Amino acid sequence: MRDVFSGRRRVQSMLDFEAALARALVRSGIAPEAASRIIESQCRAELYDFERLATETALAGTVAIPLIRQLTELVARRDNTASGFIHLGATSQDVMDTGLVLQLRDACEAIGAGLEKLSLAIAQLVERRGSLLLTGRTLLQQASPIPLGLKAAGWMDAVERHRERLPETRRRALVLQFGGAVGTLAALQEKGLQVAAALAGELKLPLPDVPWHAQRDRFAEVAAVLGLIVGTLGKIARDIALLSQTEIGELAEPAAPGRGGSSAMPHKRNPVGCAVVLAAAIRVPPLVATMLAAMPQEHERGLGGWQAEWETMPQICGLAAGALAHLHSVIEGLEVHEDRMQSNLELTRGLIFSEAVAVVLARKLGRARAREIVEQACRRALQQQKHLRQTLLEESEARSHFTREELDRLFDPRNYLGVSREFVDRVMAARRTREP
Amino acid sequence: MRDVFSGRRRVQSMLDFEAALARALVRSGIAPEAASRIIESQCRAELYDFERLATETALAGTVAIPLIRQLTELVARRDNTASGFIHLGATSQDVMDTGLVLQLRDACEAIGAGLEKLSLAIAQLVERRGSLLLTGRTLLQQASPIPLGLKAAGWMDAVERHRERLPETRRRALVLQFGGAVGTLAALQEKGLQVAAALAGELKLPLPDVPWHAQRDRFAEVAAVLGLIVGTLGKIARDIALLSQTEIGELAEPAAPGRGGSSAMPHKRNPVGCAVVLAAAIRVPPLVATMLAAMPQEHERGLGGWQAEWETMPQICGLAAGALAHLHSVIEGLEVHEDRMQSNLELTRGLIFSEAVAVVLARKLGRARAREIVEQACRRALQQQKHLRQTLLEESEARSHFTREELDRLFDPRNYLGVSREFVDRVMAARRTREP
Amino acid sequence: MRDVFSGRRRVQSMLDFEAALARALVRSGIAPEAASRIIESQCRAELYDFERLATETALAGTVAIPLIRQLTELVARRDNTASGFIHLGATSQDVMDTGLVLQLRDACEAIGAGLEKLSLAIAQLVERRGSLLLTGRTLLQQASPIPLGLKAAGWMDAVERHRERLPETRRRALVLQFGGAVGTLAALQEKGLQVAAALAGELKLPLPDVPWHAQRDRFAEVAAVLGLIVGTLGKIARDIALLSQTEIGELAEPAAPGRGGSSAMPHKRNPVGCAVVLAAAIRVPPLVATMLAAMPQEHERGLGGWQAEWETMPQICGLAAGALAHLHSVIEGLEVHEDRMQSNLELTRGLIFSEAVAVVLARKLGRARAREIVEQACRRALQQQKHLRQTLLEESEARSHFTREELDRLFDPRNYLGVSREFVDRVMAARRTREP
Amino acid sequence: MRDVFSGRRRVQSMLDFEAALARALVRSGIAPEAASRIIESQCRAELYDFERLATETALAGTVAIPLIRQLTELVARRDNTASGFIHLGATSQDVMDTGLVLQLRDACEAIGAGLEKLSLAIAQLVERRGSLLLTGRTLLQQASPIPLGLKAAGWMDAVERHRERLPETRRRALVLQFGGAVGTLAALQEKGLQVAAALAGELKLPLPDVPWHAQRDRFAEVAAVLGLIVGTLGKIARDIALLSQTEIGELAEPAAPGRGGSSAMPHKRNPVGCAVVLAAAIRVPPLVATMLAAMPQEHERGLGGWQAEWETMPQICGLAAGALAHLHSVIEGLEVHEDRMQSNLELTRGLIFSEAVAVVLARKLGRARAREIVEQACRRALQQQKHLRQTLLEESEARSHFTREELDRLFDPRNYLGVSREFVDRVMAARRTREP
Repeated sequence: MRDVFSGRRRVQSMLDFEAALARALVRSGIAPEAASRIIESQCRAELYDFERLATETALAGTVAIPLIRQLTELVARRDNTASGFIHLGATSQDVMDTGLVLQLRDACEAIGAGLEKLSLAIAQLVERRGSLLLTGRTLLQQASPIPLGLKAAGWMDAVERHRERLPETRRRALVLQFGGAVGTLAALQEKGLQVAAALAGELKLPLPDVPWHAQRDRFAEVAAVLGLIVGTLGKIARDIALLSQTEIGELAEPAAPGRGGSSAMPHKRNPVGCAVVLAAAIRVPPLVATMLAAMPQEHERGLGGWQAEWETMPQICGLAAGALAHLHSVIEGLEVHEDRMQSNLELTRGLIFSEAVAVVLARKLGRARAREIVEQACRRALQQQKHLRQTLLEESEARSHFTREELDRLFDPRNYLGVSREFVDRVMAARRTREP
Repeated sequence: MRDVFSGRRRVQSMLDFEAALARALVRSGIAPEAASRIIESQCRAELYDFERLATETALAGTVAIPLIRQLTELVARRDNTASGFIHLGATSQDVMDTGLVLQLRDACEAIGAGLEKLSLAIAQLVERRGSLLLTGRTLLQQASPIPLGLKAAGWMDAVERHRERLPETRRRALVLQFGGAVGTLAALQEKGLQVAAALAGELKLPLPDVPWHAQRDRFAEVAAVLGLIVGTLGKIARDIALLSQTEIGELAEPAAPGRGGSSAMPHKRNPVGCAVVLAAAIRVPPLVATMLAAMPQEHERGLGGWQAEWETMPQICGLAAGALAHLHSVIEGLEVHEDRMQSNLELTRGLIFSEAVAVVLARKLGRARAREIVEQACRRALQQQKHLRQTLLEESEARSHFTREELDRLFDPRNYLGVSREFVDRVMAARRTREP
Repeated sequence: MRDVFSGRRRVQSMLDFEAALARALVRSGIAPEAASRIIESQCRAELYDFERLATETALAGTVAIPLIRQLTELVARRDNTASGFIHLGATSQDVMDTGLVLQLRDACEAIGAGLEKLSLAIAQLVERRGSLLLTGRTLLQQASPIPLGLKAAGWMDAVERHRERLPETRRRALVLQFGGAVGTLAALQEKGLQVAAALAGELKLPLPDVPWHAQRDRFAEVAAVLGLIVGTLGKIARDIALLSQTEIGELAEPAAPGRGGSSAMPHKRNPVGCAVVLAAAIRVPPLVATMLAAMPQEHERGLGGWQAEWETMPQICGLAAGALAHLHSVIEGLEVHEDRMQSNLELTRGLIFSEAVAVVLARKLGRARAREIVEQACRRALQQQKHLRQTLLEESEARSHFTREELDRLFDPRNYLGVSREFVDRVMAARRTREP
Repeated sequence: MRDVFSGRRRVQSMLDFEAALARALVRSGIAPEAASRIIESQCRAELYDFERLATETALAGTVAIPLIRQLTELVARRDNTASGFIHLGATSQDVMDTGLVLQLRDACEAIGAGLEKLSLAIAQLVERRGSLLLTGRTLLQQASPIPLGLKAAGWMDAVERHRERLPETRRRALVLQFGGAVGTLAALQEKGLQVAAALAGELKLPLPDVPWHAQRDRFAEVAAVLGLIVGTLGKIARDIALLSQTEIGELAEPAAPGRGGSSAMPHKRNPVGCAVVLAAAIRVPPLVATMLAAMPQEHERGLGGWQAEWETMPQICGLAAGALAHLHSVIEGLEVHEDRMQSNLELTRGLIFSEAVAVVLARKLGRARAREIVEQACRRALQQQKHLRQTLLEESEARSHFTREELDRLFDPRNYLGVSREFVDRVMAARRTREP
């Protein structure tokens, strides 16, 4: 992603626009083929003086103006007439917005591929280790048991929704911007639409109904979808990081030399992949807010809002792509510690089955009384460090409603998984329908 | 929108869930019809003690627990056995999330209708006043002329994109949440999916592949789409507010007694509708960031993140709906001052036609020389307070390339609108295809 | 805090301004005493029709205009001449800004007191349980041991910094706003400053050098300081919530009937106090961003930015005050489980002392070799489930540098606390200097 | 500012920490002088392989670990024993946090100087052009006249408050961080505080009461203050940009070749300095939210939160410094167009004096009747395109309360400036007291 948004690539994307425009002018009968050929030949980033570009940009307020100046110089040196067709009909924002669209097309392609890889890695986790049981946890307290597959299916289900969102957004957002000074294409007179269509064809971008320079919802939507994606990545990373705590130890990031150490403590193995993802999950939401806040741009080109997008959009893409790559490598090499899952399930001496017991009792005693009995048995189990099954057996009212065998069954996590398997199957099946 | 998110409505939505669950339990052969009837009869918000609810919520950490307690008391008073079927298989989050989904369904319905009304109002503006010419402005400086229709078509085009986004999001996001304590529906044993399907049917909500309590992208997506909508509303309001400045005066919000006055200055007519919209455009982006930042929720139910959503989501809906209503009334009654548009077009003594001149010259002299000549003529026009056409005529090199008639044609705004009309037609046509 | 920002209180604060202004006009020889008495007598919120106020506010764009209209009616009914002195010299923003300042004065007072109480509760925790040892944790992995007092001293140190920031901000931010329509006080002619000074005196607010209606840094600073406070509260709550995880169990929120239960699982005891604080820590930062984003307000009164502050500022105050109260009650009743601290310290079989060993070896073997040896011993300890002391003894190079007694000493957490006690003492001493 | 936060400078700041630590160990009798000299000699950024650093950082999760590895290699090549004293007692976060503190010290120094320069430029504007009259504007509508000096004094007053805030924050926030693995300095045994004090002395940083690695309010406060500053800069830039609109034309950014042009329109002179400032004012608030949101970091070192700060803090500094520099150059060379100020004052045909008239009438007729009369006169003035003075004269009730001379006086802007001059004097005087 660093490549897609490098300084050089940004310039090249803008030059791609200028070259395509020259060709489109030829196809529309405006420019002579020769002029287009010369212009095109000078649209290679390596010909440009980047230092001068930086200096002049600071003054001009956009990079487009000094870039086109250099392009004009390069072309005019070869053919002054040809230089008259440079940028014809276009304005700075056309070059910069469409240039960014071209970069975002590559970025979204990469992120789409990353989501697919991540989904596959999770699917493999489900297939290989999905039937392992661990403790479900709510508000950071142990709740009831779940299969690892259900937890992972939840992650995957969200990833799959992003795989649905991203193409919708790409289709809607990544289109040509070409409107000239104020969106009328006036400089091209009656040929505006013809040139626009040819330009869109050259760049393989859809032609929108109307130039959208002053309507920024397209870029903001890309930002928002990436924000949603990073939110899910953050959720997965948070789960993994919490399950990797020394005291829980059910998961661990893959080990590798030089990975996740500490400068002070030689024994440390820090979940550094998750740290990258969680940092992105903190940083991206405010950046999405920036893109939304920048939307109300003045008239036909904004003062401040447009400029605020320039670095923000690439940052969001970079953070999303980085988080995606890190999380993929974490999940692909994830260490799963079955023994710790097992021992953690036993940690509360049966308390995590309190719902199971309460449900059975509620049908016999009504909801309120059932809860009372179970809550009291839980309290006694905690105070006396006994197993909940034991304190229930010691409670005459409770005991009368269960046989020992029923209780044994109730306290076996394998009997308390409900329709987990069906849920997992549904998610896996839905995933398969999306495969090529 | 205030109704949709009132305290009473929130409680009613949760009770709707509980009533539907009771019916679903009957349909699944778990609860007897009689129990369901009693439970259902007590699921009316007016039966509840809201003050007690507030007090107990503060302690319990969610409103679901004390609400179900009151429901249990109400039902148990009539039939203790029936109370055993209350909330069976569900957890607090099921009630609260699905309750919010039901509220969002209504909110999105209203916002969709609001977008439609707004689009229509803009379309009528295009039809009635679209051919008026005004000055296009970039970076707050006068640029080239545009028809009012093109400006409004840009607004409408964005509004139409939102009309496409919102249904996609509603379909994906507004689904049943029902998973029990940790998403396994364990308390319902093998009947979990059957009950879930019946419950979804009762509430007329789609049944998702898997419970999504810990995956918050659905709510965050609704927030993001509303954020995009508000961004566009802000853009339109900003345009109108700027065009309503005393010194520009091309537009004015509709006048009404008591509207937009000042406590100090009797002459003031403030664009207070735009103020509401612009305030929303400042407030909503950070609230969207809140929803995104809240996504990485711990394990099977979050600590902090989930709770952060509760007031944020309704606020976003309220701000979006309020902005939509205000902007609609502004546009519906918008005053258009043709005379000021005309006089503002003449304000720069022809400078706004500099692009037109430069384009013609560039084809003859090359881009660099053409710009030089025009920039110099512009400078002289400014310094000597002359019309640009005049300073061009005084410049020998420029004069040689134009006849007086050509210059007259170049400086007539009606000749410098490019394909504006085609753009407007395309947007209007696309809008019509969306109509029912 | 709910009281401070209730609808009624907001209106009363504005009426307090109007009453004080009437008195100030008398003191400045502008209004007759009688007029002031009548005006003052009508400045009681209970006299006002709040429903009408709401309706007219929606239209007017501010609450000040319809409020002053009702005040005018009330006064004119008694004495029409007196009504000529209502609001004299002032504008809507004067009333609303100063009204908010009066509310913020109370809010900051309460938050300052809350910080003091919180600091005291932490100090008591330090004094009572500060010498207990627990595991320090970095990146969610066990690191080296620390005394509970050091952890708590870190919290307190931050709280004390907030107790230093808040008064600085209150002194700078909470001042009179009074400038009339555009900040000149023109309607009062040459008496503007005199009235302003009298008004400031009446309201016991400092008189600023110049009206600040268009410079919003004062309110934004209050928001920012509250944001900093909530960030610290969130940090403390996160520590407590993590230490309360079932698998760590070193702390627990105070128990109380009805507190922190689950609607599905009778055994749950959720850290609901921490949840409230953590939710605030997610919600407040974007709200602070709103206040900052609203600062660039147009000219002498903003369009959108000013309006965006109205509900945001009270929300920030409410969230901060709520988080403060919840965290105080959590810490005051905090359960500390010494046994779990002890057993968690032993969980890694000595690995958490790897830094201790490495430091001793580094002085003898150089940093690189020392780390290599210790890392290898750690790896073997993990693989073979042995104590690190044991694997070190089995390693010939390491063994040669330690006696058994040295190793015993190295692996005793009480010997690896460095200057923790001194740090704690310094913080406690600094706290005492701040006491009254 | 780009220098202060360059990759090289960041590394150098961390090496400065390591060199100072080596000296501090000598001063505390722990390390031999020779070791310190060798370590210090290798603490120069130019000796380091930055590409390797980048690669290893990605894996390690922090830049500190691979940096210290290179330092260790460099030193060990010269003297293996010396390498045992590298980083002794410290942890990654000590190096990185204190390194950032050193960079922020320079950044804040520069920003403080920038504020001083900006304040001076505004003061000069006040002195030179402060008595010019222009129209005050509220909600983007013309209100009453003000002197330019009053507008600028409002700006300056806010800038001066920032000059008060920044030193408070620098003093409180920019202190040494040194705590070792978990904040106990255990590796230094009983000498921890001695080394810490020596290290603080070497780096000329205050020694805090306790390590603050897990309490991030210090960095967040710097961010917040910079956020407040940028908000004010944005306010000033917004005023200037709006006053530079073609249709208002009262101000213009300084002209320079290559400054603020358009690639399409040769006549354009865009307020590009203001654009940079306004873009910063959109981007910084969410970045401040990031710093606040990152505060609740886990235990003794966070997972995600800490990492989120690394690029955010430098970005905030860079945006603030950039905005400051641009705004300073805009104000220093600001073009002031007195003629446009004058003609804009006359634009409404006297309406902007409605408050003046209403105030006089209110004392005679009561507030309600006065407003009615004036509002009606204003309406007629608008409809009939007459001067308000004229429509008042035509209104019998109004006319009876004014002589022609009184009306003349009322409609002269020079008579409606209230205590503007006193306000300006107060701000200028306060500014002078702050001068060295």
